Amino acid sequence: MKYLDGINSPHDLKKLNIDELKLLCGEIRETLVKTVAENGGHLASNLGVVELTAALLTVFDLPEDKIIYDVGHQSYVHKLLTGRREQISTLRQYGGISGFPKTGESEYDFFNTGHSSTAVSVALAIAEANKLDKKDAYSIAVVGDASFSNGLTMEGLNNAGRSDANMLVILNDNEMSIGKNVGNFHKYLTDLRTKPRYTDFKKNVKETLSGSAAGKRISKILHSTKSQLKHLLLKNTIFEDLGFTYTGPVDGHNLEALITVLKRVKNLRQPVLLHVVTVKGKGYEFAEKMPDVYHGISPFDYKNPVEIKENCSTYSNLFGNKLRLIASENEQVVAICAAMAEGTGLKKFAEEFPSRFFDVGISEGHAVTFASGLASMGKIPVVAIYSTFMQRAYDNIVHDAAIGNYHVVFCLDRAGITGADGETHHGIFDLSFCSHIPNVKIFMPYTAYELEEAMDTAINKESCPCVIRYPKGNAPDGNTGDIYDLKQVACGSKATVVAMASTVNEVLGAKIDADVFYITSIPFNADSLKESLEKTKLLITVEDSIVAGGMGEAVSRKLNEEGIYVKTFHEGLKNFVPHGKISELLSKEGLDSEGLKEKYSYLRKDR
Amino acid sequence: MKYLDGINSPHDLKKLNIDELKLLCGEIRETLVKTVAENGGHLASNLGVVELTAALLTVFDLPEDKIIYDVGHQSYVHKLLTGRREQISTLRQYGGISGFPKTGESEYDFFNTGHSSTAVSVALAIAEANKLDKKDAYSIAVVGDASFSNGLTMEGLNNAGRSDANMLVILNDNEMSIGKNVGNFHKYLTDLRTKPRYTDFKKNVKETLSGSAAGKRISKILHSTKSQLKHLLLKNTIFEDLGFTYTGPVDGHNLEALITVLKRVKNLRQPVLLHVVTVKGKGYEFAEKMPDVYHGISPFDYKNPVEIKENCSTYSNLFGNKLRLIASENEQVVAICAAMAEGTGLKKFAEEFPSRFFDVGISEGHAVTFASGLASMGKIPVVAIYSTFMQRAYDNIVHDAAIGNYHVVFCLDRAGITGADGETHHGIFDLSFCSHIPNVKIFMPYTAYELEEAMDTAINKESCPCVIRYPKGNAPDGNTGDIYDLKQVACGSKATVVAMASTVNEVLGAKIDADVFYITSIPFNADSLKESLEKTKLLITVEDSIVAGGMGEAVSRKLNEEGIYVKTFHEGLKNFVPHGKISELLSKEGLDSEGLKEKYSYLRKDR
Repeated sequence: MKYLDGINSPHDLKKLNIDELKLLCGEIRETLVKTVAENGGHLASNLGVVELTAALLTVFDLPEDKIIYDVGHQSYVHKLLTGRREQISTLRQYGGISGFPKTGESEYDFFNTGHSSTAVSVALAIAEANKLDKKDAYSIAVVGDASFSNGLTMEGLNNAGRSDANMLVILNDNEMSIGKNVGNFHKYLTDLRTKPRYTDFKKNVKETLSGSAAGKRISKILHSTKSQLKHLLLKNTIFEDLGFTYTGPVDGHNLEALITVLKRVKNLRQPVLLHVVTVKGKGYEFAEKMPDVYHGISPFDYKNPVEIKENCSTYSNLFGNKLRLIASENEQVVAICAAMAEGTGLKKFAEEFPSRFFDVGISEGHAVTFASGLASMGKIPVVAIYSTFMQRAYDNIVHDAAIGNYHVVFCLDRAGITGADGETHHGIFDLSFCSHIPNVKIFMPYTAYELEEAMDTAINKESCPCVIRYPKGNAPDGNTGDIYDLKQVACGSKATVVAMASTVNEVLGAKIDADVFYITSIPFNADSLKESLEKTKLLITVEDSIVAGGMGEAVSRKLNEEGIYVKTFHEGLKNFVPHGKISELLSKEGLDSEGLKEKYSYLRKDR
Repeated sequence: MKYLDGINSPHDLKKLNIDELKLLCGEIRETLVKTVAENGGHLASNLGVVELTAALLTVFDLPEDKIIYDVGHQSYVHKLLTGRREQISTLRQYGGISGFPKTGESEYDFFNTGHSSTAVSVALAIAEANKLDKKDAYSIAVVGDASFSNGLTMEGLNNAGRSDANMLVILNDNEMSIGKNVGNFHKYLTDLRTKPRYTDFKKNVKETLSGSAAGKRISKILHSTKSQLKHLLLKNTIFEDLGFTYTGPVDGHNLEALITVLKRVKNLRQPVLLHVVTVKGKGYEFAEKMPDVYHGISPFDYKNPVEIKENCSTYSNLFGNKLRLIASENEQVVAICAAMAEGTGLKKFAEEFPSRFFDVGISEGHAVTFASGLASMGKIPVVAIYSTFMQRAYDNIVHDAAIGNYHVVFCLDRAGITGADGETHHGIFDLSFCSHIPNVKIFMPYTAYELEEAMDTAINKESCPCVIRYPKGNAPDGNTGDIYDLKQVACGSKATVVAMASTVNEVLGAKIDADVFYITSIPFNADSLKESLEKTKLLITVEDSIVAGGMGEAVSRKLNEEGIYVKTFHEGLKNFVPHGKISELLSKEGLDSEGLKEKYSYLRKDR
């Protein structure tokens, strides 16, 4: 790579002229496609910000100036240009560079991101700290349009607008979130985007009103409301109402335009919102045509488009299919997702039951409170949100669903260790933040049958808030009886083991001389467990989830309530988990069969 | 009360003429002042919505139409007019009517509220359910201006604006939240409020542009951008940008105006935002002059203004004073609150260190992410938010503070059972949602000394995210050594008891023959506990907090990690707790000395 190979830091970027920068952008695109084809990852969003990232790193002075990429999956270009091009082949691999900004990786990754909508708040904090320290540096938040439907972004903007800090928010408007954008704000952006350039227009109107005859006359006629008219004409975007200087829209693939406007913005030294229009997947035709498919993608052949094939046995697909079946039989059932119709398996539901489907955008808090409201009206809302993102709606579950004891069914996809997206994306907290909430029942299905059984139970039999959490990937087969019962999968004498989901296979692989059960609900029927413990007097619980407040402790709580106290080991996670293959991560945490075999070697069958 | 005594349901209200309604409003005010003087409660906000509530209940048809009061502390008038005037003397008393909407109390309280900013989401849900059920009813959210700085309200508005549902959002603009309003949105509302009536103006401009000579000329000149100009003139409020029909501002104390505009709105059958301007404390001069003081108030003499006297020994005051001391010695320390400078004890800090104080409005999520950003820049942010409201920022703690392991100090006031505000306001979840988060240390000071010690430790000695949680009310004296050590307050032989905060006094009162400790941190030094358990072999933990995932289980976790397994009873809360005096609630939960004495009678000293 003629130009890319010479970029060891953003300083090298500043030495290139505009033509060289354009050629560099081509090389970046080539590298992105090849890397993601090899390793999997977020392709379309990174192809969309090649010029924007190059322009930002050329105009601003990192690391003094700081860029916060909202969500952060669009930071590959930034990584390539900030000294990590040689490591890019390790992207998303265990021990390699992360697919998200990571402070441990480089001084140019100033703050970790992963969940959406945090960037404005962080950028404002940096700007306020600079003010306190009397530093003249800039902070920049790069935020996709979808994140503007999230309340946290709005809270950040509301607070930033009154600040006189050196702060730039870039609205990266690609007309897409992971799914299609929703809410009226999206419509509003479309209006802004499709109009003649707002900045030019504003200038014209101003001149017209102050200079022309007509302007003078209408000024006179409206003299009593002149200041208001001026307000109307000069301050009309939501961003300006919130205190920002708005500029744009700018073509996000026009390097000259971007560099020019960024240089101008840099001199303003006040909160500015720059509206940049980009194309997801830009420059790679397959991704431009199917940005959804190339959003987050597994390894593929970059010369051929990815075939869209439905994998029927994923938990997400099984969930979606079962929900359609249930909904066809019970018209009170409605479904809600937060900008993830495809990922959560609800796309066909949306097509089949459009009036009973609500995609609320990246608004997890609203999704849960809205669902609680629907339940208060007799609907049975099923809220499908990835486990890690449901963390954003904890109080909504407590305050709106649980206090009223409403029949809302929360379906938490991607529970447990999820792999290459790393610490911000593992679903390892859901049991700890849900299992202590009064009135809430939790289901942790493992087989396809159990997922369906859990859904049937939660939707058709229970009437309280129910959480169904299930892993990423394919559900195994197996018909395993009542969801509230423990499932015994091995017999032994030295210990009683209770495991969750796929960790049961690791336990079996550890060849401990134990009764091995797996658990699919909290609360659960403890009879078989009590019987086994009378014999073994030793309990071991295993979960690929945070151990504090998790499944194992819920099992002990139940046993304690029934007067049973035995020696217990709770195996699970005690810390955040980095990125890598699920098997590698389990192994690193000592939760694979080898780790368990070693720790519990004294309980082995052959001892 | 001539009129009020005749109102047994909103139907009776509809029989009154406008003059009678006005007299009724006077009677309501008198009842409000006398009731709150007797029982304590929220006075100023209820005095502000007397006419608004009367008008809503006159124009709309409850219970088919439904009103959701955001936060809900302004629902006393509603309660008086919906069949509960005879119970109003029991307001906020144990077993009496709640100071917030409660579905269990009346069919006219359709949804429980307590935390701010949920009303738009709930009202939208009701409207969508009505649509699905082909019902023509209306749903109304009554939302104070302060809640518009919260992201959840913005998420709700963004989703509601695209709906064609029968839905009315009333912006109750009283220029106040609990403290002063903040953020640019507040400035924006001031603009709207202080201008000539927007609706009239809009009409004028429309006529001018279409009819007058000047209008025609400017239309011609600007022909290329006419539709945009029209957009500018006809759609300029944020609410209209979000898809609402905006109308107002209307004087919220003018009954005729309110009834007229509500009738008009009712015929629109689309999402409408009605901007109503009210005066907090209206009609009671002391409250009008000091709405802050009369926001939430203890019983008082209604003929004399409440004296403002600082109670130096409250945890809040001790916190504020200590923080000023620390901040004067360490200039990196900054403070953040969420619209609660007064309540959290930060008012003097704000005066002494204005540039280092950030009141972010009712934006708890932003407060925490913003704090994490400040910490990333080397500041030491102290975030003071009531325990119950911190539930709204769970993911921000996990994702922004804890993953980066930033030195943010969270000060959670009003932890534990807090009394008369009831189930939405007890701080009983903080240990369960914080103690499982990796990197986070928790302090639970009980004495004044311990609060200061915890602050010194968390701010000056630790460098990780720290949570300091402390009760409502006055801190006892007592110099009690290292914050990480258990404090032994009694010696015995039959059990080892670990209690938290004031529950230690209940344990002492139960006269159990036990070593009694109280705990002020997680993690903690378990040496003395282990020594005691070697002797007693029985552990009892007591907390006025949710037991699942709480203090007691954290103690057991630590003991298990050190290989100690004993018979254990974890005493604490298993369900939501209603309103009442703290002592009554503890008693009801079996956590007072009588309850503990009874349950553990076999361990008594005299046995």
